[in-house]
Amino acid sequence: MNNSSPKTISIFGATGSVGLTSVDVIMQYPEKFIVDTIVAKSNIKKLAGVAKLLKPKLVIVCDGSKAKKLRILLSKEKCEIQSGEIAVIEASARKVDIFIAAITGIAGLRSTINCIKHVKLIALANKESLVCFGENIIKSAKSNNCKIIPLDSEHNALYQIINSKEKKFIKRLIITCSGGPFLGYKRKDLYNVTPGQALKHPIWNMGKKISIDSATLMNKGLELIEAVYLFGIKESQIDVLIHPQSIIHGLVEYIDGSTKANMGIPDMRTPISFALNWPNREITKTKYLELSKIKSLTFDNLDEDVFPAIKLCREVVRQGGTAPAILNAANEIVVNSFLKKRIKFSNMIEIIEEVLSTLDIIQNINLDSIIIADRNARKLTKNIIKDLSL
Amino acid sequence: MNNSSPKTISIFGATGSVGLTSVDVIMQYPEKFIVDTIVAKSNIKKLAGVAKLLKPKLVIVCDGSKAKKLRILLSKEKCEIQSGEIAVIEASARKVDIFIAAITGIAGLRSTINCIKHVKLIALANKESLVCFGENIIKSAKSNNCKIIPLDSEHNALYQIINSKEKKFIKRLIITCSGGPFLGYKRKDLYNVTPGQALKHPIWNMGKKISIDSATLMNKGLELIEAVYLFGIKESQIDVLIHPQSIIHGLVEYIDGSTKANMGIPDMRTPISFALNWPNREITKTKYLELSKIKSLTFDNLDEDVFPAIKLCREVVRQGGTAPAILNAANEIVVNSFLKKRIKFSNMIEIIEEVLSTLDIIQNINLDSIIIADRNARKLTKNIIKDLSL
Repeated sequence: MNNSSPKTISIFGATGSVGLTSVDVIMQYPEKFIVDTIVAKSNIKKLAGVAKLLKPKLVIVCDGSKAKKLRILLSKEKCEIQSGEIAVIEASARKVDIFIAAITGIAGLRSTINCIKHVKLIALANKESLVCFGENIIKSAKSNNCKIIPLDSEHNALYQIINSKEKKFIKRLIITCSGGPFLGYKRKDLYNVTPGQALKHPIWNMGKKISIDSATLMNKGLELIEAVYLFGIKESQIDVLIHPQSIIHGLVEYIDGSTKANMGIPDMRTPISFALNWPNREITKTKYLELSKIKSLTFDNLDEDVFPAIKLCREVVRQGGTAPAILNAANEIVVNSFLKKRIKFSNMIEIIEEVLSTLDIIQNINLDSIIIADRNARKLTKNIIKDLSL
Repeated sequence: MNNSSPKTISIFGATGSVGLTSVDVIMQYPEKFIVDTIVAKSNIKKLAGVAKLLKPKLVIVCDGSKAKKLRILLSKEKCEIQSGEIAVIEASARKVDIFIAAITGIAGLRSTINCIKHVKLIALANKESLVCFGENIIKSAKSNNCKIIPLDSEHNALYQIINSKEKKFIKRLIITCSGGPFLGYKRKDLYNVTPGQALKHPIWNMGKKISIDSATLMNKGLELIEAVYLFGIKESQIDVLIHPQSIIHGLVEYIDGSTKANMGIPDMRTPISFALNWPNREITKTKYLELSKIKSLTFDNLDEDVFPAIKLCREVVRQGGTAPAILNAANEIVVNSFLKKRIKFSNMIEIIEEVLSTLDIIQNINLDSIIIADRNARKLTKNIIKDLSL
């Protein structure tokens, strides 16, 4: 579409769902991007595959024990190969145009914070950096003139709509929610659902962690917290709307009664392409939306009694300080335990609530206090789960 | 919301549906507007009522025979009173911030063209000026630095979404259409429908002319022509989508698969308030949209066989020149004849087609050639109707 010089780009979390979709988007227009660094936690087979496609300068596997095998897999490639957490942090300080922050969980936080001073644009998929440290990250991005474009379809949708001139006329942001695999269930029906049932998301094909979060609606709660920081909007101005088809991703309601929405076939290539090509747009492999074929879009209120996660996230973002980090850490642990069938589906939110009510919330946070809160929350959550299992 | 100095404003077509809704919007924030001129065709009772509310400097009734009675009705008011078509044209050259162009039909064309050089912003409800003379009007508005904000809910919706930076990435504009009172009818069912049935629009409460146009879907066809000129987009890039609830007013599809929509409860106060308060927004009396209460939005393809008006309008806009003016003129006559029960519902489009295939289309138009084409088309249409009635 335009003939500007290629953008340098790094993918932190190259082998996950967002990472691999980003690879797909980049490979559609390889002449537009020069790939600098790709990072993965431990899946060296996929990482090597991505490296062969993208020809990056630097390939890093976080898990040091996999480095040797990775070198063998990439013996014919010219790229530099590194390993270990320190290498990841160091590489996040490399100057690139676009940094794709797609490492899941708290592990992605440090590299995301670090890159702000060195990159022009962060394509942000790592929820935890905004959830746990949102206010600081947004502030730091502003003062470093680093643009943050969210990749989550909901936030990307809102990002595409909101412009600075009209921001003061916003009455309400609305994040849509498919309702997950258990939409319509009663509270008692949820108690015995299995990880297998929970992993079957009706719309999106995603990683395990986010699929479980989508079943509890914790994913939507985390998105609500993210939106608060990302758009500088109070939680009371953000609503969650059940919309099983996931065609409308986000809506912005203005004070005059006008509402803008962003919609599309659920396909992560669209928000990723938007971020990587910003301020331009390019044709993607995403199918165009034909509402006349879809025929009907339906909407409903959220049942907060069945899905208490969102209410909990509202409380947590009102508390601020380390509260979101505690919730996030406890959630990572309970999801993992649920996947291992050590706890029941309904236990997940109950345990997070217990952790939140037990630990002290510290205000005026910095990265260290967040890391400490995270560790303490994980420890306490594990202990509670251990006690439950006895 | 802000404390800027009041805007001067004129309403041409003050007693019609858009005019009276504009009065409602202005009266919600009377301190924001200084009303300069109000104009009506002949309804002096309503015009006097509006004058008493808005306290304009100048009140004009187009129909000179009503001037005397208007003076009596407004004898206690300080406003100047004028009458006649020339007074209307002259008044359209008065310098104001906002000119509401709400005179229906070709009658509104001359004042709308004339005001471009003298006003900062036209809030445009007069479809005919864009339909008949769109290219010229947009060009003239650009060179005179006059902003045009459309009031039609569909175009206003698109206007709110489209921004100059992203325009080149638009794949398609979609105008929604409630389908009118005869949605779902077969072609043969339409032959004997009455004006009474046709006037019952399911969603919008509007004037008679536009209600009939909504029943034939000619209104949507005229909107398509308008959109071509207003947004500088080819007709092949504009689709019409049946959406009976009229909640989504317009959609913009981008090349990357992302689609933006503008929606709201059908209420003309929202687009009018948008135009009058631009670039700000103000709280209106419009109810906010609650999709969780509406539950379902439905969509369907247009049945072009039952409603041939849109296909006809596509042909006409491709022909350009005087073709849209001929279509518009013939349509005004057939609608009037249908309302008087002189022709059948299905005759309307048939007669317009006949007029279009009979008259020569002239390219390189100016206002005179448009006026002549308009007159010739009216004459021929009347003759065809007379022959039919014999």
